[in-house]
Amino acid sequence: MNILFVGDIFGSAGRHIVREHLPHVLETYQVDLLVINGENAAGGFGITPSIAEEIFDLGAHVITTGNHIWDKREIFEYMKVPADSHERGRRILRPANYTSTTPGFGFYQGQLADGTEYAVMNLQGRVFMSACDDPFRKVDELLSKITAKVILLDIHAEASSEKVALGWYLDGRVTAVLGTHTHIPTADERVLPGGTAFQTDVGMSGPYDSVIGVETELVLHRFLTGMPGKFEAAKGNPKMCAALIECDAATGRAYAIKRIMLGE
Amino acid sequence: MNILFVGDIFGSAGRHIVREHLPHVLETYQVDLLVINGENAAGGFGITPSIAEEIFDLGAHVITTGNHIWDKREIFEYMKVPADSHERGRRILRPANYTSTTPGFGFYQGQLADGTEYAVMNLQGRVFMSACDDPFRKVDELLSKITAKVILLDIHAEASSEKVALGWYLDGRVTAVLGTHTHIPTADERVLPGGTAFQTDVGMSGPYDSVIGVETELVLHRFLTGMPGKFEAAKGNPKMCAALIECDAATGRAYAIKRIMLGE
Amino acid sequence: MNILFVGDIFGSAGRHIVREHLPHVLETYQVDLLVINGENAAGGFGITPSIAEEIFDLGAHVITTGNHIWDKREIFEYMKVPADSHERGRRILRPANYTSTTPGFGFYQGQLADGTEYAVMNLQGRVFMSACDDPFRKVDELLSKITAKVILLDIHAEASSEKVALGWYLDGRVTAVLGTHTHIPTADERVLPGGTAFQTDVGMSGPYDSVIGVETELVLHRFLTGMPGKFEAAKGNPKMCAALIECDAATGRAYAIKRIMLGE
Amino acid sequence: MNILFVGDIFGSAGRHIVREHLPHVLETYQVDLLVINGENAAGGFGITPSIAEEIFDLGAHVITTGNHIWDKREIFEYMKVPADSHERGRRILRPANYTSTTPGFGFYQGQLADGTEYAVMNLQGRVFMSACDDPFRKVDELLSKITAKVILLDIHAEASSEKVALGWYLDGRVTAVLGTHTHIPTADERVLPGGTAFQTDVGMSGPYDSVIGVETELVLHRFLTGMPGKFEAAKGNPKMCAALIECDAATGRAYAIKRIMLGE
Ligand SMILES: [Fe+2]
Ligand SMILES: [Fe+2]
Ligand SMILES: [Fe+2]
Ligand SMILES: [Fe+2]
Ligand SMILES: [Fe+2]
Ligand SMILES: [Fe+2]
Ligand SMILES: [Fe+2]
Ligand SMILES: [Fe+2]
Repeated sequence: MNILFVGDIFGSAGRHIVREHLPHVLETYQVDLLVINGENAAGGFGITPSIAEEIFDLGAHVITTGNHIWDKREIFEYMKVPADSHERGRRILRPANYTSTTPGFGFYQGQLADGTEYAVMNLQGRVFMSACDDPFRKVDELLSKITAKVILLDIHAEASSEKVALGWYLDGRVTAVLGTHTHIPTADERVLPGGTAFQTDVGMSGPYDSVIGVETELVLHRFLTGMPGKFEAAKGNPKMCAALIECDAATGRAYAIKRIMLGE
Repeated sequence: MNILFVGDIFGSAGRHIVREHLPHVLETYQVDLLVINGENAAGGFGITPSIAEEIFDLGAHVITTGNHIWDKREIFEYMKVPADSHERGRRILRPANYTSTTPGFGFYQGQLADGTEYAVMNLQGRVFMSACDDPFRKVDELLSKITAKVILLDIHAEASSEKVALGWYLDGRVTAVLGTHTHIPTADERVLPGGTAFQTDVGMSGPYDSVIGVETELVLHRFLTGMPGKFEAAKGNPKMCAALIECDAATGRAYAIKRIMLGE
Repeated sequence: MNILFVGDIFGSAGRHIVREHLPHVLETYQVDLLVINGENAAGGFGITPSIAEEIFDLGAHVITTGNHIWDKREIFEYMKVPADSHERGRRILRPANYTSTTPGFGFYQGQLADGTEYAVMNLQGRVFMSACDDPFRKVDELLSKITAKVILLDIHAEASSEKVALGWYLDGRVTAVLGTHTHIPTADERVLPGGTAFQTDVGMSGPYDSVIGVETELVLHRFLTGMPGKFEAAKGNPKMCAALIECDAATGRAYAIKRIMLGE
Repeated sequence: MNILFVGDIFGSAGRHIVREHLPHVLETYQVDLLVINGENAAGGFGITPSIAEEIFDLGAHVITTGNHIWDKREIFEYMKVPADSHERGRRILRPANYTSTTPGFGFYQGQLADGTEYAVMNLQGRVFMSACDDPFRKVDELLSKITAKVILLDIHAEASSEKVALGWYLDGRVTAVLGTHTHIPTADERVLPGGTAFQTDVGMSGPYDSVIGVETELVLHRFLTGMPGKFEAAKGNPKMCAALIECDAATGRAYAIKRIMLGE
């Protein structure tokens, strides 16, 4: 069974490059399950219902997010669906370790056409990030509810240490632990000894002639002066970054992980 | 002209794997200039004079460091040498944007046997790190003093945004901007349009069956309980991570950058 | 009913000044319930069993702490007692919003000689502090278990905003919300409209000719150089800082709060 | 000679309470020099030219600010005046340890009607705040340019340790070191042994039925959910917080410091 996870789509450049490459990647690798992080899909900051629809139309089974999830408020209502729903609003996740009173859910369990059950979890790190619940205990709690064998975690976090630690913590218990948030792909993809595919960061799907998606000049101005200024999504040099995981659908054990970076 | 930059050596496992691979890498790629980050060489925390000597004996022209530079106090005296010296104590750098009253220097300019001048700069980031001087203005100040054309910067920083921004800021002004500190290599190595080789993080040279160098169980205990506990360097699965830069010795302009990860 | 809360005892200077003033303060104000924060009682960093005993011997019903609780490891065993115990090891608290697997407890409910029930809760803030559970939800959980009317909270936190917010959140639900951790007393003590006594920070009981307890020269060296160096407790100008709360024992409603600072 | 320093004016409630009390305070204490922190004067976030004019009209010689200085962009132009100017745009300060290319200045030296020279400096802390230059070295640099004996520093900082350390660092070198930014007055005002008046935080001049100025419900919503939401200035229970310093105009040495909190 093949799983494709696409890293944070950033702005229109990110949406275009993913739309361009996804069809042939899905076919080439015979992808069964598609998960896409969309936290920056709307101009770099958040995601709207119509952009979420656009990403689902590309074939995504689940959209994961991260700290930018609430940047566009239209998404609040879209995510207010019953826990046992399977509609699209239920399949866009916010980090599971946010306060339980926030809209939406942090994990989803579904079924592929062939009957294979799968689960996707989304967590946020705590090192160098705003306060949220303990991702280690939260993941234990989620796993106690999940019956699927094929399980993917998007750990949206800043610090390499926290993401790597979660990878080891979950080795043998989930199919893949994939990091997002730094917007730069790491070259450490591997299958850990217990059968969990791991990559510290999948990297963004967006414009790489930028500072992690934002127009370079705007970010440099901020660094050089400390003064405020609007951040805008860059356009140049778009690339789609993704991780392809091969696993045993019966056990959820990963066999291989492949890093993908596709440009124009 | 070929430059090899080796990422943070972590503990004895890191020293061993570098000692094992360096000779053939230096020969294979006909390396002219060798720079090694050694901030974690002594058991994962700092560097001692004897370990610095060991690294210089491997052929390093310059040793760079980062936030762990002061972990072993024996290094203070070793680094107290005159600014115009060329001895080894002058060629181990601490970040240049530390307070000027701290021991040692943050850049070094030297000459290869064939007369080619080169300079190495070391800076620390400010995002999610302890307070230090502005790396952007500091690098301008350093460049105004440097006469060499071949210039390498080790930017020791946590946030991808800060490292990427420095890369663009220096594009066309230096030969290479190479990130360190996260201990995970990134897959975004490239030559920027102005001729500066860039990689967000070169990754550590150390044990990858670990949490960024430290024994996994010890780090998990910290994450799971928040309680103190001694951190010890791991041993398993050592890899040497490095970046190889080809450049024009006359102009300092980079032609190519190659990511290297070598294990047992 | 009168409650005295003594702010973070810092080192031997703090222990001495508290020992000197406590007897007459307890008598003058006819204190019924005495709570002391002892997180810095052992040389400024943590607390040992013998120092805890010393503080209990002064008459403390409960010792609260904060982020320094684990600095001295001897305290781990001392705090490993059954939840329903009333011995001293049960009456030294760590923040309740630490992971449940850490030693000790974060609240205590007891009875005064006259049969009045009281409860003491200890929480840690999350703004500018290391990760812990949400203090707002945790306090709701604790309150749901507490039957006493007289309830005191030591909120150990850095940011004024977080402490003030907790004060308003709990107004009318507890007798007093008292901040600790900055080691400087604030002049904003008041009874909130709902009957909860509040002070953003009670201040430390320790040497005020210092930088929040530590020898001034050592801290200045750290600020001026960024280099490591051992921190030692200062001795000069000790003061005991405390808050005295008058409340109705039957309802737990506070009538008055008085800020106390007593020197040599 | 008497100096009055008024803490961060917060929103319209802060402006009103200061306008109400200032005339009689200035008269009662025969204030010679008036300095007001205005970083939150415009609805809690920044300051506009017209509000700056309003504060100068109240008699302020100098307006200091802090991290909120750039919240209202109209102030940029207002502050672009020559260094040797004495007009109002020159007498509103931003922290001196911001990058030199930002608008405005971080210190001002002027003369009172009787010919007494005075200087006001404004610095920002680095602990738990965004990156800026070293306040310790910056203050040394500023002092080397100042010829006045009467010198006041507004140190706008979060951490009590950093403000207290600066107080000791400058003891005997300036007339007063007064902290701002936490919006809660501290009860540790004193004249240090060398003759420098010190208070860790003067507190805000604004609505105290709030969370450090902002409507309580809005802040609680943020703490409880982590979700975004507009912050608005509260109105209830306004108080003017200030520090009154008596000093020798000839030597600049402080004799006394008095904490002031005046409500409706
Ligand atoms: Fe992102
Ligand atoms: Fe993110
Ligand atoms: Fe390192
Ligand atoms: Fe480092
Ligand atoms: Fe403390
Ligand atoms: Fe503390
Ligand atoms: Fe303020
Ligand atoms: Fe501020």
